[in-house]
Amino acid sequence: MEPVYNFGAGPAKIPESVLKRAQVELLNYGNTGMSVMELSHRSKTFGEILARTKSNLRNLLDIPDNYEILFMQGGATTQFSAIFYNLVAAKQAAIGEDKDIAVDYFVTGSWSNKACQEAERLSQDMPHVRVNRVADAKKLTGKYGQVPAQDTWQLSDPEQTAYVYYCDNETVHGVEFANVPEVDPRVPLVADMSSNFLSRPVDVKKFGVIYGGAQKNLGPAGVTLVIVRKDLVVDLKKGPLRPLMLDYQTMLDNDSMYNTPPTFAIYMVGLTLEWLLEHGGLTGIQVVNARKSGKLYDAIDRLSLFKSPVQPDSRSKMNVVFNLTTPELEKEFLKGGEERNMVQLKGHRSVGGVRASIYNAMPEEHIDKLIEYMEEFQNQHAA
Amino acid sequence: MEPVYNFGAGPAKIPESVLKRAQVELLNYGNTGMSVMELSHRSKTFGEILARTKSNLRNLLDIPDNYEILFMQGGATTQFSAIFYNLVAAKQAAIGEDKDIAVDYFVTGSWSNKACQEAERLSQDMPHVRVNRVADAKKLTGKYGQVPAQDTWQLSDPEQTAYVYYCDNETVHGVEFANVPEVDPRVPLVADMSSNFLSRPVDVKKFGVIYGGAQKNLGPAGVTLVIVRKDLVVDLKKGPLRPLMLDYQTMLDNDSMYNTPPTFAIYMVGLTLEWLLEHGGLTGIQVVNARKSGKLYDAIDRLSLFKSPVQPDSRSKMNVVFNLTTPELEKEFLKGGEERNMVQLKGHRSVGGVRASIYNAMPEEHIDKLIEYMEEFQNQHAA
Repeated sequence: MEPVYNFGAGPAKIPESVLKRAQVELLNYGNTGMSVMELSHRSKTFGEILARTKSNLRNLLDIPDNYEILFMQGGATTQFSAIFYNLVAAKQAAIGEDKDIAVDYFVTGSWSNKACQEAERLSQDMPHVRVNRVADAKKLTGKYGQVPAQDTWQLSDPEQTAYVYYCDNETVHGVEFANVPEVDPRVPLVADMSSNFLSRPVDVKKFGVIYGGAQKNLGPAGVTLVIVRKDLVVDLKKGPLRPLMLDYQTMLDNDSMYNTPPTFAIYMVGLTLEWLLEHGGLTGIQVVNARKSGKLYDAIDRLSLFKSPVQPDSRSKMNVVFNLTTPELEKEFLKGGEERNMVQLKGHRSVGGVRASIYNAMPEEHIDKLIEYMEEFQNQHAA
Repeated sequence: MEPVYNFGAGPAKIPESVLKRAQVELLNYGNTGMSVMELSHRSKTFGEILARTKSNLRNLLDIPDNYEILFMQGGATTQFSAIFYNLVAAKQAAIGEDKDIAVDYFVTGSWSNKACQEAERLSQDMPHVRVNRVADAKKLTGKYGQVPAQDTWQLSDPEQTAYVYYCDNETVHGVEFANVPEVDPRVPLVADMSSNFLSRPVDVKKFGVIYGGAQKNLGPAGVTLVIVRKDLVVDLKKGPLRPLMLDYQTMLDNDSMYNTPPTFAIYMVGLTLEWLLEHGGLTGIQVVNARKSGKLYDAIDRLSLFKSPVQPDSRSKMNVVFNLTTPELEKEFLKGGEERNMVQLKGHRSVGGVRASIYNAMPEEHIDKLIEYMEEFQNQHAA
């Protein structure tokens, strides 16, 4: 069968060897005679899957002991609410419920904007809580196409700030932070890494919370990984009322099994982590990812019919967004892509254009194929 | 390989033909060259899976047009919060935010108790909202082992009641309602059917909301089905502030795809519904389920070493809970079960004893095997 070039932004390509192993084991996991999907989450066998997955993630990211790994449901959008509730509670527990609190958001694309909007909405009945946009790229430059320069940042008073939030990689706009933003070390930094999680090493110590949905670099949709510094997890009775399933303390106390977790999705994450370890871990994949995105941006810059809407220092290594010089050419380019079995190349419905999502599992040869097609297209259509 | 008799309460047995089909299609769904897990949730192919799954569920349960089917995440425990927030909002929208509101709970086991506790907790900062236990079996009889008689029920004033909540089948205690409780038709009835969903026909018109986690009768853990009467879904700005992902209106407006849904779990639910349609639908499975549970309770009542802690008219057809006459015999019975490849027969850790969960996918022969073992055990150990 002709290979499929899956440039989907998520759910996205999964390593073929991972899928093959899942297929072999699907009716009989580890000689139990049962599918992973049929195992009780309280069984020894599933307990081992969960423990191994956590341990591999801890090793890959070198996660310090004072951080806990939680497996939650509901995607990044659920975390938009959970982070607000839990970290406001932690700050209130630290300084008192009657004190003024700020929550700081970098807004660099549609995902951090949505996260900020959720905090703005949930803070409506909390007169002591103020939501502050540290820097909003659209307000500063008219569009989402760069990480705002440090001299434009308006951070709140560190003493009052419950957290500073940013989205490390904006999936829709293809904007990625080149470096971890420098904030006061007293303030917990929160990063949405949904679409660049495990694409390179990360210094976890710099963060209060790192989280990400699995459906880009980690496995199927349906599970969200949350890495949280334990001192930020406070009793459910502290701070604003929050639904039990959004409460980090409840998750932590029950090793992510207060109720039935998405067991098969966690198993798939486990297989993907093993694949990553076999492929050089994070330092190994970082080199490959830099090369993959580098050659694609190089083609965009080199070929006159293609252009990147993202400033060079903010270009995502995972979601390469680009345009053609006219809407007609764009349409034709996408059509030709489909004919070549290149699927999901269309940009997000909110922005249009072209987007090649090239996560860890995307083989370099598939990017070579895309570049080949871009060159062919250039030769056919350039004046 | 020796067959495994999986009596797990959930995640539970899945029909073998469903798993085999998933296995065959795992790397190439519908000739796309991709796994279902790799399909974009916005793709035409996944859209068809979602639409077919909804349509099959609508047919199976004969769901009227004024009800919507939602696919959510976070299990029943997330619905404990979502139901409270959404239906209090609906009631406030109907009668005004300053009016007194009651929410009524039947408490017949640990799950309805947890649901009620969550409502009690979330109502803490809502002075107008009162949580009422209509009937609490443990308070009335000292334990959870029956549905309280109708003359003990203390329902709130229908004009004030946002909803009446009950758990149709208590998975831990093996207590099932023989009939839908009769409440004032003006009051929306909410049923947690997590562990007996699709085990028999249900008259959906009688309900405001029916919901259930998939991991018993429907597929793998990680997706929750919510069937909601549309007039109960109100604007997010109405009523108490609730996280976006718990908001029924947001789910409804976006056909359960406000963010990435658990696509593979939904696909598995779809396959399971097709299996159910091929096996006689709900009227067909009802007959089989009555026969399966009937013969097992018959053995419990017939054999002197075994006893049921549940009153006959409240016995679950899905989770058959029983004890032996001494803890020593119970331990030995469970040990012998394991040697016979009968897994997850142990009662829930909170109650002990024995529990045989016999959902739709459990073949009748597996129950025959269990009864055979019970008879053998009786012959060996009875005085």
